[in-house]
Amino acid sequence: MDPVRSVRAAVRRFLREEAPAPYVQSGVLFVAVSGGADSLALADATAHVGHRMSMTVRALVVDHGLQEGSAQVAATAAEQSLRAGVDEAEVLTVTVSGRGGPEAAARSARYAALRSALPESPSLVLLGHTQDDQAETVLLGLGRGSGPRSIAGMRPLDPPWARPLLGVPRSVTNAACAELGIVPWIDPHNSESRFTRVRLRTEVLPLLEDVLAGGVAPALARTAAQLREDGDALDEMGADLHSRALTCEALEIAVLETAPAPVRRRALRRWLLGAGVPELTDAHLRAVDALISRWRGQGGVWLPGNFEARRSRGKLSVDAGEPTTRGD
Amino acid sequence: MDPVRSVRAAVRRFLREEAPAPYVQSGVLFVAVSGGADSLALADATAHVGHRMSMTVRALVVDHGLQEGSAQVAATAAEQSLRAGVDEAEVLTVTVSGRGGPEAAARSARYAALRSALPESPSLVLLGHTQDDQAETVLLGLGRGSGPRSIAGMRPLDPPWARPLLGVPRSVTNAACAELGIVPWIDPHNSESRFTRVRLRTEVLPLLEDVLAGGVAPALARTAAQLREDGDALDEMGADLHSRALTCEALEIAVLETAPAPVRRRALRRWLLGAGVPELTDAHLRAVDALISRWRGQGGVWLPGNFEARRSRGKLSVDAGEPTTRGD
Repeated sequence: MDPVRSVRAAVRRFLREEAPAPYVQSGVLFVAVSGGADSLALADATAHVGHRMSMTVRALVVDHGLQEGSAQVAATAAEQSLRAGVDEAEVLTVTVSGRGGPEAAARSARYAALRSALPESPSLVLLGHTQDDQAETVLLGLGRGSGPRSIAGMRPLDPPWARPLLGVPRSVTNAACAELGIVPWIDPHNSESRFTRVRLRTEVLPLLEDVLAGGVAPALARTAAQLREDGDALDEMGADLHSRALTCEALEIAVLETAPAPVRRRALRRWLLGAGVPELTDAHLRAVDALISRWRGQGGVWLPGNFEARRSRGKLSVDAGEPTTRGD
Repeated sequence: MDPVRSVRAAVRRFLREEAPAPYVQSGVLFVAVSGGADSLALADATAHVGHRMSMTVRALVVDHGLQEGSAQVAATAAEQSLRAGVDEAEVLTVTVSGRGGPEAAARSARYAALRSALPESPSLVLLGHTQDDQAETVLLGLGRGSGPRSIAGMRPLDPPWARPLLGVPRSVTNAACAELGIVPWIDPHNSESRFTRVRLRTEVLPLLEDVLAGGVAPALARTAAQLREDGDALDEMGADLHSRALTCEALEIAVLETAPAPVRRRALRRWLLGAGVPELTDAHLRAVDALISRWRGQGGVWLPGNFEARRSRGKLSVDAGEPTTRGD
């Protein structure tokens, strides 16, 4: 299949098989456009497929104001989106304040701006993340090591966000732009090695491709998709177990102890976060779980935020401990 | 904690908390020794901890005969094991025949030799795989992309194999040997870049460490441990669903359709492999699952080995199709 048709097919399949009906029935689709090849190929595909489904397609372009000439880049992206066939294109200007590194700050400003541009009715914003972006996300998560969830990657559908191109390689979006005669903007940051994600893209993934003899990005994307489904299923079972075990803010041991350990830890996590514990590591959850699975009359488990989880008379309870006394 | 004590603590914790009682009660522990730092540090720790638990400790050294002087390397490893305190050391000579690449062939010959050296009673062979080996295994699995199971890494316990050092960094086993005055053998293959695993160790992991600012090996090992537990829990649920849905070799749709999709696919996998389907990809399982989750009266699904899965009258059945006619 030629590249333009491949991208359009991915958008069509997403809208037919994955987008819930209310979003399609709303009659409007939004597409976030940066001016890069991925999002411009997506703008073309969304306009093409959306119009066949009698929907209005609106492009949203965020100007982060971080680089000289960013307003011009945004204006060009809006113009290219219109030429690609979208019905309207709007530039949203944001101010990025530097929390959590430049990448994270730009991302959260961008998502907030996109969200605020949406009407109150059910709306989807199509994002141009490709299979290669997914592979980078999985590798980033691997380095964090915070469990299966951290390597499950981005979700295809997480309203209002939709990512119909997670199965499409970046080489295809590039080729689609070439076929359409679109000259995408090339982000100068993409060739600077100071950003972790850029180094994963330009150094780690090519080396992994070489060492493992190819196919790494689709392999990572496939694994991530299965991990997401496994994780979602276990999360739901954890939520169900939590509600079955809960009585008066405590959890009944008898209900918990026959459940599989990964489901039980998810129920405990839900319960502890709900009680106000500010953060939990896997080690915390295992210590609390030992009150069930390795019970030998041990004392309470201290948790972040000065909480204590205890077992007594067949129930687990969690309370904020004694306030700590502080000197002046 | 100093390195020798760290390695001993890992072995003690494993034998106390993870090794099933019959293996400990057998009174004998085997330890596989290559002559490298990981396995010599493990031989010391196994002898130390085993003797305190009144067990006999026997070292098994495999001579693959692949490199010149391999018999001398094996003899030295056996001697060093005895000096590290094991009660007996035996050299097993094997012949490696080249199926699936040199690494895979050497591995399967090694495991077969170790297995054949064991008595009939319940026996554990302790293996010196470290946290770094686990990280390499996870990355290898990522490249294969065959789902969560492929990145769940090696199991700490998979009788007769036991891997008590999966949480211990290689730097600690190296330091333990230095502390004990043991000069380990350094495999010349470890500095040749022709082996995938060696390239992961010497090129990919150091680059990932640099890009992700450290801690990659423990992060990969932690994630792998959680994936294994999640996968095991879902596998058990799949086995349970399979036995509840099974009647006269067919599966009842009514039992399957309310189960979470990842559990249902595991039940289908079990059922199809049991029926003789020789191999199954995730795509095959999803196609069969569509007979349940996206039923609109479609025809059968063809599977490897000329099998066909069909839905009729509320049941799924699978049969070997018509034998294909072959010319001479």
